[in-house]
Amino acid sequence: MSLISCYAAQSATAALSPYKIERRKLGENDIQISIEFCGVCHTDIHFAKNEWGQTHYPVVPGHEIVGIVAALGTNVQKLKIGQRVAAGYIAGSCQICSSCKAGLEQYCLQGFTAIFNSPANDLGGFTYGGYSKSIVIDKNFVLLAPTGLDPAGMAPLLCAGLTTYSPLKHWGVKPGMTVGIIGLGGLGHLAVKLSHAMGAKTVMITTSKGKAADASRLGADEVLISTDVAAMKAMENQFDFLLNTIPSPHDYNHYMGLLKVDSTMCIVGSIGPTSELNTEALVYKRRSISGSFAGGIREAQEMLYFCAKHQIVSDIEIIKMDQINEAFQRIQKNDVKYRFVIDMRSLS
Amino acid sequence: MSLISCYAAQSATAALSPYKIERRKLGENDIQISIEFCGVCHTDIHFAKNEWGQTHYPVVPGHEIVGIVAALGTNVQKLKIGQRVAAGYIAGSCQICSSCKAGLEQYCLQGFTAIFNSPANDLGGFTYGGYSKSIVIDKNFVLLAPTGLDPAGMAPLLCAGLTTYSPLKHWGVKPGMTVGIIGLGGLGHLAVKLSHAMGAKTVMITTSKGKAADASRLGADEVLISTDVAAMKAMENQFDFLLNTIPSPHDYNHYMGLLKVDSTMCIVGSIGPTSELNTEALVYKRRSISGSFAGGIREAQEMLYFCAKHQIVSDIEIIKMDQINEAFQRIQKNDVKYRFVIDMRSLS
Repeated sequence: MSLISCYAAQSATAALSPYKIERRKLGENDIQISIEFCGVCHTDIHFAKNEWGQTHYPVVPGHEIVGIVAALGTNVQKLKIGQRVAAGYIAGSCQICSSCKAGLEQYCLQGFTAIFNSPANDLGGFTYGGYSKSIVIDKNFVLLAPTGLDPAGMAPLLCAGLTTYSPLKHWGVKPGMTVGIIGLGGLGHLAVKLSHAMGAKTVMITTSKGKAADASRLGADEVLISTDVAAMKAMENQFDFLLNTIPSPHDYNHYMGLLKVDSTMCIVGSIGPTSELNTEALVYKRRSISGSFAGGIREAQEMLYFCAKHQIVSDIEIIKMDQINEAFQRIQKNDVKYRFVIDMRSLS
Repeated sequence: MSLISCYAAQSATAALSPYKIERRKLGENDIQISIEFCGVCHTDIHFAKNEWGQTHYPVVPGHEIVGIVAALGTNVQKLKIGQRVAAGYIAGSCQICSSCKAGLEQYCLQGFTAIFNSPANDLGGFTYGGYSKSIVIDKNFVLLAPTGLDPAGMAPLLCAGLTTYSPLKHWGVKPGMTVGIIGLGGLGHLAVKLSHAMGAKTVMITTSKGKAADASRLGADEVLISTDVAAMKAMENQFDFLLNTIPSPHDYNHYMGLLKVDSTMCIVGSIGPTSELNTEALVYKRRSISGSFAGGIREAQEMLYFCAKHQIVSDIEIIKMDQINEAFQRIQKNDVKYRFVIDMRSLS
């Protein structure tokens, strides 16, 4: 069975899959969303291919969801059928631990429920995600889609946007600061737009000279080529914050000297074992390496309104559902500017 | 030539050394200190043996100095001859950069001047440290020794004390917090005393069950054996701050799960390349790894008064100058509780 037959199983096209997925029924606190668009994130590929060894097949990826309210549970008052809504990676959490109470559901101490591949009360025992025509989600994890933003371009905000917005806000990015965005991909291109909109001097840090023009178009004030030893040396101790979006293991130490005293590089791209850490740059300037994952629900809503205010959406290429395998292959070759979004109306 | 002949050269005992070291003359802003006691730090060994490849021979180590004012430059008003004073690792800085203005001379953007082995206007071209009967230091880098503390036990506060006090203060250690001190050596034993005095629940984290009793005596509320998998698991997400004093490369990732969301492990022991970093623990709980080096001058003075108030000195073993080689060997075997201090009156 091909991978596509797993995650497209929800199409109920028997030819594609031996699986018949029973999606979650509408509970009293739930919202059923008719999905218009779903972004394609590298995480979807990791799960589809079981690259992290955690996949429960059949898996339905997809966690950058924009759609229309199709049905409401009896306890849901705040929304109406026909409204546009959105949902991201976090689809459940304990709601009572210190993290949840602080609006940090992504750091729930009981472990959050992901929108797909998480143990849950869906009929198959696991959550199924947004590569689907429809999804049922707890009302506490559904966001209002602001008006005035293209719904397809909005979809990647739900993961790539939030994953970069959250650390930029947490580390207090504002006018007067110099912020470096490392890596220009799905996350990086939104990070540049967001940091620029927050008023910081925003520097795109990339290995690739060819990306300079595009970085400027997206809002970068400067481009720093990280393989240019003299340029890197000239920028030592200049950055108030670095957001590292590189999605694969690499030498973190290469960037640490760019940070001012007491400043932080935050990792959002590469999760897992990476390079040997050299503590010298940490110790001699009290610098930090940190990480950040997705964002909380309150923060996700705030991010969507921020993007509406600043007219920020993702640069996207819209595909049909049956182009997903090609899209996966192109993502793995970094051949996308900067995010694929599936038009779910193409799923018959 | 043996190593001892290098760093004992200032004794002017021709039999010990071919070097005749010319120490810095008293300038108008300088203070000459007649040294009573000098602590022995592992850093001294690294430089004596050129283990970091930075040593300019002849080198005179020693950066935990307590002594008596012997002479004052014409511009020095605040001290009197006969007063007890102290000095640590930082003996000069630009005084005008943002770090220096913030009282963070240890992070001077021009680079600080270390009390030994730094380029300087000493007659030999490099600073010479505290394994000596006398030293001349800029008045801005000399500290008042508080009364009521044993001067020999006070000496290690100038490096080991400050190196642990500074991060404990910077990360806001206070009552209600749970703080882990990793590693029980020269730095660790003072960190336990300081964290306890700051009112935090202080947990000694060590590989060695044999150190439990001593950790409790020093002020640890609990001892966590880091090789005990079940005990480590039980303490996941429990710590507000970890101070890592282990002096050699080791697996940092082993400790990161102990930290609460948004909390930091600060490295003060091991400077240089270490283990492979796994970003998972950083990303999924927004934890940080940071570092800290020594402390600023204002902070060093504050630390001495804090120690006087709480009657904190180092646990020491006093040696004579001619026992230094044996002391070095014992330090390298971790055979000291917890710091050697040289009685400089033993240097003829």
